[in-house]
Amino acid sequence: MTASLQIDEHGRLRHLLTTEGLPRDLIQRILDTAETFVPTPGAPSKKVPLLRGKTVFNLFFENSTRTRTTFELAAKRLSADVINMDVAHSSKSKGEDDLDTLYTLQAMGADIFAIRHPDNGAAARFAAHAAPHVAIVNAGDGSHAHPTQGLLDVFTIRQHRPDFDSLKVAIVGDVRHSRVAHSTIHALRTLGTTDIRVVGPEQFLPDNADRLGVTATSDTAAGLDRADVVMGLRIQRERIEGDALAGVADYHSQFGLTADNLAFASSEALVMHPGPINRGVEINADIAYGKQSVILDQVRNGIAVRMAVMAIIAGNRNQAGSGSGDV
Amino acid sequence: MTASLQIDEHGRLRHLLTTEGLPRDLIQRILDTAETFVPTPGAPSKKVPLLRGKTVFNLFFENSTRTRTTFELAAKRLSADVINMDVAHSSKSKGEDDLDTLYTLQAMGADIFAIRHPDNGAAARFAAHAAPHVAIVNAGDGSHAHPTQGLLDVFTIRQHRPDFDSLKVAIVGDVRHSRVAHSTIHALRTLGTTDIRVVGPEQFLPDNADRLGVTATSDTAAGLDRADVVMGLRIQRERIEGDALAGVADYHSQFGLTADNLAFASSEALVMHPGPINRGVEINADIAYGKQSVILDQVRNGIAVRMAVMAIIAGNRNQAGSGSGDV
Amino acid sequence: MTASLQIDEHGRLRHLLTTEGLPRDLIQRILDTAETFVPTPGAPSKKVPLLRGKTVFNLFFENSTRTRTTFELAAKRLSADVINMDVAHSSKSKGEDDLDTLYTLQAMGADIFAIRHPDNGAAARFAAHAAPHVAIVNAGDGSHAHPTQGLLDVFTIRQHRPDFDSLKVAIVGDVRHSRVAHSTIHALRTLGTTDIRVVGPEQFLPDNADRLGVTATSDTAAGLDRADVVMGLRIQRERIEGDALAGVADYHSQFGLTADNLAFASSEALVMHPGPINRGVEINADIAYGKQSVILDQVRNGIAVRMAVMAIIAGNRNQAGSGSGDV
Repeated sequence: MTASLQIDEHGRLRHLLTTEGLPRDLIQRILDTAETFVPTPGAPSKKVPLLRGKTVFNLFFENSTRTRTTFELAAKRLSADVINMDVAHSSKSKGEDDLDTLYTLQAMGADIFAIRHPDNGAAARFAAHAAPHVAIVNAGDGSHAHPTQGLLDVFTIRQHRPDFDSLKVAIVGDVRHSRVAHSTIHALRTLGTTDIRVVGPEQFLPDNADRLGVTATSDTAAGLDRADVVMGLRIQRERIEGDALAGVADYHSQFGLTADNLAFASSEALVMHPGPINRGVEINADIAYGKQSVILDQVRNGIAVRMAVMAIIAGNRNQAGSGSGDV
Repeated sequence: MTASLQIDEHGRLRHLLTTEGLPRDLIQRILDTAETFVPTPGAPSKKVPLLRGKTVFNLFFENSTRTRTTFELAAKRLSADVINMDVAHSSKSKGEDDLDTLYTLQAMGADIFAIRHPDNGAAARFAAHAAPHVAIVNAGDGSHAHPTQGLLDVFTIRQHRPDFDSLKVAIVGDVRHSRVAHSTIHALRTLGTTDIRVVGPEQFLPDNADRLGVTATSDTAAGLDRADVVMGLRIQRERIEGDALAGVADYHSQFGLTADNLAFASSEALVMHPGPINRGVEINADIAYGKQSVILDQVRNGIAVRMAVMAIIAGNRNQAGSGSGDV
Repeated sequence: MTASLQIDEHGRLRHLLTTEGLPRDLIQRILDTAETFVPTPGAPSKKVPLLRGKTVFNLFFENSTRTRTTFELAAKRLSADVINMDVAHSSKSKGEDDLDTLYTLQAMGADIFAIRHPDNGAAARFAAHAAPHVAIVNAGDGSHAHPTQGLLDVFTIRQHRPDFDSLKVAIVGDVRHSRVAHSTIHALRTLGTTDIRVVGPEQFLPDNADRLGVTATSDTAAGLDRADVVMGLRIQRERIEGDALAGVADYHSQFGLTADNLAFASSEALVMHPGPINRGVEINADIAYGKQSVILDQVRNGIAVRMAVMAIIAGNRNQAGSGSGDV
């Protein structure tokens, strides 16, 4: 349902809600467009006028200074006006309140919303009620999806390993609760990757590994075996206390991205992480800044990918006029 | 006193502090100017260079993301630089501290302040001490005034019912504590409206209905009788518990903007609300988004009205040079 | 060490971390450049394109709306894009976390960081790890340094008393814990001032007065005797309770900038204060806004000085290319 909501009747990107079901040609168009936005290090950031006169709202119901900043920079480099709105979201807040907020900000002249929300499916709910000329970009909803992160992950992989069909990818950590992992897996699958392993203690493995098209294992050696890409996920410390694990040190040793564990992978495996890292928990600092790491490339590429998504959607909006939509 | 403070010796708008005593021709000039700033839905927002090189400070001693955003958007569309400052205001803060803040921000190069403050009369206090080239726009002070809201209300009414003389207006809710109601009533009176009813439980009705020039009643049927405009006010839930009312459901039934209560009004009555709405308290959601509602027009017009106020004041400042003022 | 870190091998300003050891010609170049940025009161602030295409991050690990705003305004008037980041800094945060933040924001395209941090030496730590094309401006680290404040102080003094050699300066208050006092003293010394007195109760006087090149005294009459400049420091009230002082009233009488105490100084002594002032504590309000006061000039000049620092550093960066640096 969310998959169809994000594509219009001409097959164009209308909103970006999830990488699940996002057609391969659209993903490739986003990545190709992002390529044009990657800055030369040290050179002044290029400003392009693609969103001049448009207003982007960063509507964050969950605090995330870092993700919000990447959307803010992406929008500013497209010459948009940017409004940051951190909205308190209490457990008593109702979905209706969110819609009132949407309608109000649309009336203020919002063109694009980057929305971060604690509830699964929140971005789709906003999209279902958005005005025809308004686009929603999901900046993370619950444990459901974080599609721009998934796209920047495959963009970064493509820079080094463009042959997705033959790729072996290991994703290590709390995959069950990770919107990043879900969005990256869907994007990889669509681009042709069949060998995806998710690795972690039992309670972190997804229930629906089959449906996701991945292999789940708690055996790190098997999970990382000859992997071309090893992606660590940020760990919430409170989740690794308990029966199965003796604590942080035990987790780091068993599932951390350490020299010992990376020895199972290809000797040239890319090391990835969505950030911010917890040194000594899910990753070792030497590995995070070592020669195999592309973690900072992920950050740099994240701006370019978000620029590409917003530029493509805005272009489609302009062509579509206000003829489509459901409000 | 505040009325004279906001008009200079040539009858021009110097600050905007209140709609009380604001001359009819000035109100009309603001509304006419705002007309030119109302955007076409879906079209890129027009940027005009009227405040280029000027710096607008949103100085908020009370949190209001929504109002602050409307001022921020209005200033940016006028090409101003905008600085948002949320200033903690404790009960121990003194008026002198506010003046120190004013003098400091003036020295930083502020040209216009949009000020939200919990104290009645705070905006006038700032205006009385502002430098000659600096203008104060009251963005809400205590329960005293919220003049841009009052102006956007009459602007929205004028779009549909331009004949203010013959208008019947009902304002429903906690009028006693509402700066919105006060500012809207003063603007309506100046534009010629004589039939204004304020409706609510006894404890919400103003003491000074006579002086305000309104009729106060707790009888919803009488208050809404053949009204052309029905404006609901946002209710603070804690204020509706107690002797007179059994709670939210009772309030909604007796004083809410519901289909039953609107049946007393003209069948084409405009439904208004300053937002954000409390669904099921002072307004029913179907009514809020129904065909009589102009609530989202109020939001859209709010940006245009704030642009108009700042553009007019800045124009007057430029003509006046630095010859007037009291610091 | 920090002194050498901020000057490149060609003697140019690479970062601004401290005024200690900053060469006289560099200080004078900053002041001369700042002169060109001082606005005419009431005139629109001049925008210059010196940082067009650059991104300035205000990275504040300690809350300071006021200082952050001066950097924001300075950067915007240089046509930079500005990102404000308030980062929570808990006592558990490690220096490594700060470096992760630095690397991440560099990857987002930051060119200049204005950094406020509770730890002494934090700015130097960032500078030591910054990428070659990235510059650090210290916006206050612990009780160590606040160099742009020191520079705006000497800039403001120079406007009225350009002969630094013959100047008598008294700095009154908690000099021991004041990064402002330290930075101002170092700048004054380098510009040739030899008669600097620091005045306050015993527990506020620095241990290292000799090394700083100042005279420390608790005798206000002697400290202020014929002074040309009297600078008060902001007092934290909790620091003036205890053995030596009976409280705020006693402090104000003994060490406050009052008419009585200023009578010891030159009759045309400049009154200075870094702000925000505590009326009735370290300064009397009539004095703060009296004819000898240049406190608001300090605020105004602060923007110009920060513009000058960023413009000079960015110019040096552009010439240096990416050939220098240690990452």
